[in-house]
Amino acid sequence: MLTSLSGSVRQGLCRATFWPAASRAAGLTPWCSSAQRSASTTGQEQLLTSIDETGVATMRLNRRPVNSLNLELLTEMNMRLDRLHLDSACRGLILTSANDGIFSAGLDILEMYNPDESRLREFWRSLQDMWLQLYTSRLVTIAAINGHSPAGGCLLSISCDYRIMAEGKFTIGLNETKLGIVAPSWFVDTMLQTVGHRECERALQLGSLYKVDDALRIGLIDEVKPMADVLPTAQATMKEWLKIPAAARHLSKLALRSPTSDKLQRNKQADIDTFVSLILKDSVQKGIGMYLDALKKKSAK
Amino acid sequence: MLTSLSGSVRQGLCRATFWPAASRAAGLTPWCSSAQRSASTTGQEQLLTSIDETGVATMRLNRRPVNSLNLELLTEMNMRLDRLHLDSACRGLILTSANDGIFSAGLDILEMYNPDESRLREFWRSLQDMWLQLYTSRLVTIAAINGHSPAGGCLLSISCDYRIMAEGKFTIGLNETKLGIVAPSWFVDTMLQTVGHRECERALQLGSLYKVDDALRIGLIDEVKPMADVLPTAQATMKEWLKIPAAARHLSKLALRSPTSDKLQRNKQADIDTFVSLILKDSVQKGIGMYLDALKKKSAK
Amino acid sequence: MLTSLSGSVRQGLCRATFWPAASRAAGLTPWCSSAQRSASTTGQEQLLTSIDETGVATMRLNRRPVNSLNLELLTEMNMRLDRLHLDSACRGLILTSANDGIFSAGLDILEMYNPDESRLREFWRSLQDMWLQLYTSRLVTIAAINGHSPAGGCLLSISCDYRIMAEGKFTIGLNETKLGIVAPSWFVDTMLQTVGHRECERALQLGSLYKVDDALRIGLIDEVKPMADVLPTAQATMKEWLKIPAAARHLSKLALRSPTSDKLQRNKQADIDTFVSLILKDSVQKGIGMYLDALKKKSAK
Repeated sequence: MLTSLSGSVRQGLCRATFWPAASRAAGLTPWCSSAQRSASTTGQEQLLTSIDETGVATMRLNRRPVNSLNLELLTEMNMRLDRLHLDSACRGLILTSANDGIFSAGLDILEMYNPDESRLREFWRSLQDMWLQLYTSRLVTIAAINGHSPAGGCLLSISCDYRIMAEGKFTIGLNETKLGIVAPSWFVDTMLQTVGHRECERALQLGSLYKVDDALRIGLIDEVKPMADVLPTAQATMKEWLKIPAAARHLSKLALRSPTSDKLQRNKQADIDTFVSLILKDSVQKGIGMYLDALKKKSAK
Repeated sequence: MLTSLSGSVRQGLCRATFWPAASRAAGLTPWCSSAQRSASTTGQEQLLTSIDETGVATMRLNRRPVNSLNLELLTEMNMRLDRLHLDSACRGLILTSANDGIFSAGLDILEMYNPDESRLREFWRSLQDMWLQLYTSRLVTIAAINGHSPAGGCLLSISCDYRIMAEGKFTIGLNETKLGIVAPSWFVDTMLQTVGHRECERALQLGSLYKVDDALRIGLIDEVKPMADVLPTAQATMKEWLKIPAAARHLSKLALRSPTSDKLQRNKQADIDTFVSLILKDSVQKGIGMYLDALKKKSAK
Repeated sequence: MLTSLSGSVRQGLCRATFWPAASRAAGLTPWCSSAQRSASTTGQEQLLTSIDETGVATMRLNRRPVNSLNLELLTEMNMRLDRLHLDSACRGLILTSANDGIFSAGLDILEMYNPDESRLREFWRSLQDMWLQLYTSRLVTIAAINGHSPAGGCLLSISCDYRIMAEGKFTIGLNETKLGIVAPSWFVDTMLQTVGHRECERALQLGSLYKVDDALRIGLIDEVKPMADVLPTAQATMKEWLKIPAAARHLSKLALRSPTSDKLQRNKQADIDTFVSLILKDSVQKGIGMYLDALKKKSAK
């Protein structure tokens, strides 16, 4: 579960430096700023989806500045995924960002600050649903990781079948621990299956954000390409995967993944309850507040 | 379970190119041809077993042309394994092919085409029994993989304790998916334990046949040797393993393998039922028929 | 469970050469000699513990000659671990040996020879408790492996969060099989999580003692340093780990380790019963006796 202990949360959230210095210098803010929330209600579409004549859909996250996942974006993702899964012509999905440099910064921390409880419940349920859909999708799913991919961005990536990441000073990993929080058990399971037990234990205890080459070495990603080649490589890889009989491919995926997805499926309500009761704790709210203040001061400098 | 969905089966089986072009050029047919079935009833022994003065048995598959596993061969393997396990002088088993170039092409697809149901049940039960015996054997088991080793051939290999494969244009892997079918759960478990979750997921979704060097890199095999050295290396390795106290070695193997074998042991009948009801589906029968027709045309060219 | 079959035990224990020739030449005896037992009752402290101003405890095994783990040493370790866990100022633990060249030779075999049954039960319970405390510790735990680390010494190492080992002719591994015995299931689980299924299967069947470079390659240890740098590297690594919010780090560790520790926790009494009834078998006692005789003859030469 996403849990934290009161004492360390304030400390952890405030000290947190989960966002690489380079991005901070470039003016990117972690998670999202308050400015970002209002942006999400402008005319700008947060999610761009297209599907080509071969049945390959491309879904581009477009919630500036850092594609943080809030309830609206997750709900939109779930609706689009539903539609793609129902469309028998659709056979593959490439997940990427509309904005080179950031794949996704993960969950929108504003969803967790002074939340309305029923919205908070919906937020977590939408994240569960998104993961369940993506992780067990009948489609070939390829992540074209064209930028930073911490926390929930890493979860999106490792829930796909294959990962191609852009060269450069980008990082990927489940860095929740550095913020004083703990990745939910299904984040942990997905990571465990991708990099193995030993590496996962170290990665989660340290909240490691891996440089691209290290991510490749430990198997967290499958390929590294220059930025301009990330999407074309994803498209070429998709062509190869689509040569495989689809039903057998999907059943093979489920043989390996459904024990893990079934665990959450059986446990959805309890997982939501635990998350909500944690977030509503005074100590956690104080910790998040202090973290957001620290962000504001940083971006004011 | 070995399962498939009707639509894709016909498509999958017909498109299937699971057998490397090189072997096809050399006149080897995948699984088996109809000519092969009759060969199995000639005087030629399908399984050659010897045991030396140090208690090391060598079992050579000799069902030409591609050592495909039919009911008779599996029954013979089970009887010989029984006998070796009961012989207290026997301490090790080297599994190899009597014919360099092909280790085993796996299950005989003719067992699954227009089958007699009771024979089909016996066929599957004999495969279960063979795997259970080999995978948990008290003997040191070494696969001397002197040629191609797709599908059931790969299963034989990864059920042993150690794998030495011949250099050359040979391949090994669980390629069932390419045929539109899905490897049974115990094939998957055995593969998972050999190469880890991430590699197994990719291998099974793609039905990957690995070249020798790639198989070594991912840990699917343990050593690569020139063809002439495969058997001598197996014999030398066997000597080393036999220095270990046998009971403790076997109990250590069971500590790691019996959770997996117990799963099938508890589930044998249901596993047979699922397999049989799948194979008897019209759509699957049509798919296999079309696949066999395609093979005939290819070999006629 | 630590089990063995009568016939092979005598054979196995007598043939056993689990201790590297180099150490034997240097006069080190495996497990312990009878001389050692009396040493343990002298004024010399068997366990040296200090804690620095940053909350990092260093625990040095000092039971000469080979830091073999008997009831007294395990009891002392448990008391010290208890105390450290209760001390809120304590945040990390470095586990090492007071004597370069030997980290720990593992369990004291004299505890298992002609034992008093109630002491034998206490011995095993104290080992269980030590492992449970160390493996799930809220502290950052780093093994500074400054010498040989077979059997129980390896268990101590892999129960920590991070492992740094000294360059040189040292070895590490679970070599119980070579002695004709089988590592308990929780030793196996801990090893499995560290090196993966395939390597664990081979390591346990063969009772492999890995040279330092091989241990690094398979991930059994994390770093190799010259002897003089082992402890300083452990201290520098500790500083890095202590930057992580402690509660979130600990919960991440538990997310990955508690399924394994819970298994033993639920099963402690049965685990003790199995161990004790095995050790009290005549055949096992004879085997141990012959092994000890062989050691005496060797050290007399």
